[in-house]
Amino acid sequence: MFVNTMPRYEILSADAIGVLDRGWRRIVSEIGIQFAKPEAVELFAKAGQRVDGDVVFLDPEFVLEQVAKAPREFDVQARNPAHNVHIGGDHMVFSAVYGCPFIREGDVRRDATLRDFHQLCMLSQGYDELDSAGGVICEPNDAPLDSRHLDMIYALQTLTDKIYMGNVVSGPNAADTIAMTSILFGGRSFIEQTPATISLINCNSPLRWDDRMLDAQFEYCAAAQPVVLTPFLLMGAMSPVTIPAALTQQLAEALSGIALAQLIRPGCPVIFGSFLSNIDMQSGSPSFGTPESALGLLCTGQLARHYGLPFRTGGGLNSSQTPDAQSAYEALMTLLPTFLAGTNFVMHAAGWLEGGLVSCYEKFIIDIELLRELRVEFTPLEISEESLAFGAHSEVGHGGHFLGAAHTMERFRSCFYRPMLSSTANFERWLKLGGKDTAARASDIWRAKVAAYEPPPLDDAIRAELADFVTRRRRELGD
Amino acid sequence: MFVNTMPRYEILSADAIGVLDRGWRRIVSEIGIQFAKPEAVELFAKAGQRVDGDVVFLDPEFVLEQVAKAPREFDVQARNPAHNVHIGGDHMVFSAVYGCPFIREGDVRRDATLRDFHQLCMLSQGYDELDSAGGVICEPNDAPLDSRHLDMIYALQTLTDKIYMGNVVSGPNAADTIAMTSILFGGRSFIEQTPATISLINCNSPLRWDDRMLDAQFEYCAAAQPVVLTPFLLMGAMSPVTIPAALTQQLAEALSGIALAQLIRPGCPVIFGSFLSNIDMQSGSPSFGTPESALGLLCTGQLARHYGLPFRTGGGLNSSQTPDAQSAYEALMTLLPTFLAGTNFVMHAAGWLEGGLVSCYEKFIIDIELLRELRVEFTPLEISEESLAFGAHSEVGHGGHFLGAAHTMERFRSCFYRPMLSSTANFERWLKLGGKDTAARASDIWRAKVAAYEPPPLDDAIRAELADFVTRRRRELGD
Repeated sequence: MFVNTMPRYEILSADAIGVLDRGWRRIVSEIGIQFAKPEAVELFAKAGQRVDGDVVFLDPEFVLEQVAKAPREFDVQARNPAHNVHIGGDHMVFSAVYGCPFIREGDVRRDATLRDFHQLCMLSQGYDELDSAGGVICEPNDAPLDSRHLDMIYALQTLTDKIYMGNVVSGPNAADTIAMTSILFGGRSFIEQTPATISLINCNSPLRWDDRMLDAQFEYCAAAQPVVLTPFLLMGAMSPVTIPAALTQQLAEALSGIALAQLIRPGCPVIFGSFLSNIDMQSGSPSFGTPESALGLLCTGQLARHYGLPFRTGGGLNSSQTPDAQSAYEALMTLLPTFLAGTNFVMHAAGWLEGGLVSCYEKFIIDIELLRELRVEFTPLEISEESLAFGAHSEVGHGGHFLGAAHTMERFRSCFYRPMLSSTANFERWLKLGGKDTAARASDIWRAKVAAYEPPPLDDAIRAELADFVTRRRRELGD
Repeated sequence: MFVNTMPRYEILSADAIGVLDRGWRRIVSEIGIQFAKPEAVELFAKAGQRVDGDVVFLDPEFVLEQVAKAPREFDVQARNPAHNVHIGGDHMVFSAVYGCPFIREGDVRRDATLRDFHQLCMLSQGYDELDSAGGVICEPNDAPLDSRHLDMIYALQTLTDKIYMGNVVSGPNAADTIAMTSILFGGRSFIEQTPATISLINCNSPLRWDDRMLDAQFEYCAAAQPVVLTPFLLMGAMSPVTIPAALTQQLAEALSGIALAQLIRPGCPVIFGSFLSNIDMQSGSPSFGTPESALGLLCTGQLARHYGLPFRTGGGLNSSQTPDAQSAYEALMTLLPTFLAGTNFVMHAAGWLEGGLVSCYEKFIIDIELLRELRVEFTPLEISEESLAFGAHSEVGHGGHFLGAAHTMERFRSCFYRPMLSSTANFERWLKLGGKDTAARASDIWRAKVAAYEPPPLDDAIRAELADFVTRRRRELGD
């Protein structure tokens, strides 16, 4: 977990925030939000909100009253307490890519498998820059469809000792996640006290929350497990083509989902979610790492703080087909603003390729390098009389060099960021080392990391209980 | 020329600036600055500064009095008035890579030639994102050494109609630049009134200004042509290994050079220069695009503003050997802070590869794409009632899409950044298009751009006079 005590980069004036604030109020009260689950509509109706079919017309003041019940900051526990995280404030929590059906490994692009899922768990466990492997790091296409959520949760629980994300495909899948988490943490009461999962609830934007996602939300909120209420906005398709319009829609959707969370269980921890980019208006394809998405990201952080909520946005997003220059500059075009905004929860922080269709091993390593660098870049300088090293100048004088100065010798091991992936080798040496480009070097690194993986210790009885649960539920699900 | 009206990202407290301010004062007064040119030492002595051999011990208040004579902002004229630039304030001026002995073109790395120089001029002329081709875009190794500055200036003057940088290898080379610029602009008095060149004067850091660079500075300052006084700091080699120490050294060096400029010609336009990165302490090689260099860059901007000076820093710097992922993320790790700092003059903004040893055509195109994106990213949002597109929401409703909405149809051509290089093609279509990675696509783009080049119009008499000058001076120089 990284604590970002650098200044936030804020680009919205108070007037602009006022305009956006009026915008979402108008949407929720005049157009309303659709909730495709009768229990949700009922909760709103009981709380005095006007309802027409499955559309709820919300009083903005009521929404803000509910939002105010959500904690500004909260903890999430990992089974290794050293990996507990804090969500909110200056804290930044990072998880790997989520939801990819395909894998890229070197020059090969293919369906993802359970073995990939396991390997990506190992990599996520192995790098301190990630606080979580996330949830669906890739889609294990070779595992039976109806029960693969069990395989994924079991892998996240046993191959990593970090926090993990819950399955959201259905209410029963969410219940299974909660049951398995209860086993791992010694009972449901322990995870209701301090949550142990975070789950992604996407809006079917514009202005509609779907039944299966809501089923999952009901389970998680009832168990006091945090949900990331995330408008899914590709401007031009799921929202209008202007950033301010997308931002007001994002507020309307996220705040309505957060209000529902508080109706299900007042005080339930939530995260204001944002997944905001645009489509390429020529091809209709999603674009990532765009200037528009960076601007949206910076505004999102400022708005979340305005409403007193921890927030999720950013990641190593890109549209590129291979881990090439585009994949890197688009990823950083999002990741650097992710830090500038002080994002509290970052999904897709490692491994994302090809618009999120592909989980790429080499890109995973590239992103870890970026996270390592950004952690240094967003650590405030210590500026004191002593840091000026006046003595070194006295020692070296005019036109000399500092390579052998006492000040240098005392600090040379730790004074600068030491790259894991980047090469500073001169051309001849680089050729001698094989003339490998960044992707080729990344390939060597992830393979060595997986080979060196050691599983974190886990009590045998708990492991057995989890395995039994998986076996029993798989049978019940008919797989 | 780009006008950056977004907020500056400032990370130094007033206290920190105070510490750094005391730091440079101590260096210039107690250790002093070495000026390897008697005329420079004499100017300082005459102005009452204490001198010991070629070391000048400067009174900080005297330095600041001189610095205050430099204009905060100034214009530089191009032969095409549409390409005039303004240096200072919110203005950002970009020029291409500078000083590379080698060229990379696809998979080939080789000595740079005059043909490369010409082609890089054509590319710089062709992209609006560059205000200047710069100066030594690459070293034309096949042109005679003593007179190649004439070939370069002639190419910059005739193949582009933008501002260009002067040669600084020697005083006579600077005089030739000024003479040729006087021909192009109709006489020396015209360029003394509004300068037409910018020249890079590097410090031989630490704390020494060398004779040949000073010879050039004397020529340019006497002609009222702006100089970029640039400490050349690779921390660990030319400066201590702490960023605050490098920043105070940078202030001591740059401000002393600026003071000299004002003694040569009071009111002479100057740019506070910064070239600040670090060496890799394991290999001893220079590192670029590092977190340390980004932090130094952000501080540099804030400090230059503190002393009321336009400043130069940033660019597409990287250490990578090929235009791969590393080249892209290191470039953006510098370019994005370049915009965050509101840098007034940016060298190396396109084409830099391999620590500046290589001018790379494909990287040139990658950098142009980054500059295009960053110009959009650093354009403030217009947030008004109308921008919220409430009507589009009314039209689309819940769970629909905005692809055919009236609001979208009216704006789809211009609403989002349109990539020149980045691909959003889905995997099948990308394969069908040849499965080209970013570098391969960049190669297609620069070749097409060079092929489509059209020279800007130039009066025949002036062209002939310039050519005559080159012929005559080459003869005089014995080449």
